[in-house]
Amino acid sequence: MNELSRIMEKVEPLSGDFMEQAAERQKHLTKPAGSLGILEDLSVKIAGITRSSRPRMDKKAVCIFAADHGVADEGVSAYPREVTAQMVHNFLEGGAAISVLARHAGARVVVIDAGVASKLDPHPGLANRKIGFGTRNMIREDAMTRAQAEESLLLGISVVEEELSHGLDIVALGEMGIANTASATAIASAITGIEANRITGRGTGIDDARLAHKIDIIDRALSLRKPDKSDPIGILQKVGGFEIGGIAGAVIGAAARRVPVVIDGFISTAGALLAYAICPGVLPYVIASHASVETGHSAMLSCMGLSPLFDFRMRLGEGTGACLAIGIVEAACRLLDEMATFGEAGVSEK
Amino acid sequence: MNELSRIMEKVEPLSGDFMEQAAERQKHLTKPAGSLGILEDLSVKIAGITRSSRPRMDKKAVCIFAADHGVADEGVSAYPREVTAQMVHNFLEGGAAISVLARHAGARVVVIDAGVASKLDPHPGLANRKIGFGTRNMIREDAMTRAQAEESLLLGISVVEEELSHGLDIVALGEMGIANTASATAIASAITGIEANRITGRGTGIDDARLAHKIDIIDRALSLRKPDKSDPIGILQKVGGFEIGGIAGAVIGAAARRVPVVIDGFISTAGALLAYAICPGVLPYVIASHASVETGHSAMLSCMGLSPLFDFRMRLGEGTGACLAIGIVEAACRLLDEMATFGEAGVSEK
Repeated sequence: MNELSRIMEKVEPLSGDFMEQAAERQKHLTKPAGSLGILEDLSVKIAGITRSSRPRMDKKAVCIFAADHGVADEGVSAYPREVTAQMVHNFLEGGAAISVLARHAGARVVVIDAGVASKLDPHPGLANRKIGFGTRNMIREDAMTRAQAEESLLLGISVVEEELSHGLDIVALGEMGIANTASATAIASAITGIEANRITGRGTGIDDARLAHKIDIIDRALSLRKPDKSDPIGILQKVGGFEIGGIAGAVIGAAARRVPVVIDGFISTAGALLAYAICPGVLPYVIASHASVETGHSAMLSCMGLSPLFDFRMRLGEGTGACLAIGIVEAACRLLDEMATFGEAGVSEK
Repeated sequence: MNELSRIMEKVEPLSGDFMEQAAERQKHLTKPAGSLGILEDLSVKIAGITRSSRPRMDKKAVCIFAADHGVADEGVSAYPREVTAQMVHNFLEGGAAISVLARHAGARVVVIDAGVASKLDPHPGLANRKIGFGTRNMIREDAMTRAQAEESLLLGISVVEEELSHGLDIVALGEMGIANTASATAIASAITGIEANRITGRGTGIDDARLAHKIDIIDRALSLRKPDKSDPIGILQKVGGFEIGGIAGAVIGAAARRVPVVIDGFISTAGALLAYAICPGVLPYVIASHASVETGHSAMLSCMGLSPLFDFRMRLGEGTGACLAIGIVEAACRLLDEMATFGEAGVSEK
């Protein structure tokens, strides 16, 4: 893991100087000080992340990591496994929710095949970075090898590097993978120490009987695999998913390159939690977008001390909440950059 | 008030047929049913408002009603009265927060001089509809005449009519007026029956001593003017503002023409509350954008049974929260219109 260590060493604290410059400018803009609330806080944070006193969020991307899960064999989802590949096709054709919201936010969509269980046709918007044809079933064996876990993290880092070469002011992280709430719950339980039955949700919308079964499967996986909190890469290996490892890597890669990274709902947040466990310094680079309906999402955010920007009772994933949040972050930065000061506008102060 | 009655008669319930069509389409879009939460609810509501099963929010406007208040003489604001005119200039020059957020939302800005205390230079973006050079001081006499109260309502209606002629799919209502939180609080107290000291806030940011003074002024205005809950136009006459009457009229005008109307913070919501008291049928056409920091905002929303979409701890006014909400409503409608169905995308269902 020399490559991963090398990247992690690049993760630095936010720039206090640029945060001070942005906060100072906020005081002189034509509004009562503090009256833009969280939007002011966001603009100051982005100044610290990007080392710019007037950052712009012009180049935006949503990276969607897709992969399949061996544990889908246990019937933990309401949808069949082939939906993962079908939805990747839908993302690329522009018909999915994330496709629409990315157009609305002016963000490009990048779909990464981190481990879909079938061979996907080439497409200009699809990065073929398959680590395997889905993970293995975590109640029978480790979901992946240690080498694959490390590979998935490096995959996420390289996706951010690739996007930086096209211009990247902010990145949103989404996912697709039938049964991946089961994997994300196991990761969340391993890191937060909260029992699975308290943080397992209905995912795509399973009924009570299947929810009880899902909790049982996650409990069995945790007791059989025994993921160790002090070894987060081992957690990824034992109960993770290729797309979740990709997201964790992308968080680390974005922090190392000082790009604000917006996380989405349950699975995306599990990826960020894993990144935080591997490299705590990434935390100030992470922006929590929405509060998901999915049980356990708030527990993960609390574990990181993050507050979501809004709660629209969403539970879709794909990066949909994160993409909406991009519009808010962009607005916050435009306010800092484009508003007139009292002096410029000839407006009297208090 | 034949003109007002004639408009109010046009306010009809939302179309159940179009809401059903939209809700039915939502079920077939490529996502678990209900997983877009409030965005789905919003799209269905907009379908009912606009009588379109796949509404588009392409033509957007923010109408900012500006006026001065006689009660500013009592020192209830942290800023001098001339700031109203100065900020109108700032809106028109594009340097205010609302200017930036309107550009971000792709909405045009329309500034209406409903009663600024000074003569404003002509500007293509400014509608000169001055009802007076500010209201009178409500602790000395009625803020305006009954005829002026009616005129301000008709002004708001005519602004919506004018904007409809330029194309209007959604309208956000903002305001500017030094001391107008005092007037809005008096209106809120008169309609909700809640004592002023429980719903008076710091407006642009006054200290404890001035807050106590502001509460005293509002209490005196209410005890001297005795606004009657059963006569909302009389409330506007006694303790209102020209811009608040304009906003109330715009809410009625938008509802009559089936245009979704997004309200902002404390003053904008007081205008909507007044519209609701005058014509309860407007309510389903109103979308509450944000929860303001200003004390008493939530009491007004509760009185109408409205829930805000988000809470960014804002307290600026101008229409800033409403303008951000336009982006959310537009996203909700685009999802309904642009997403592929399971059949179109070839995605398996449950």
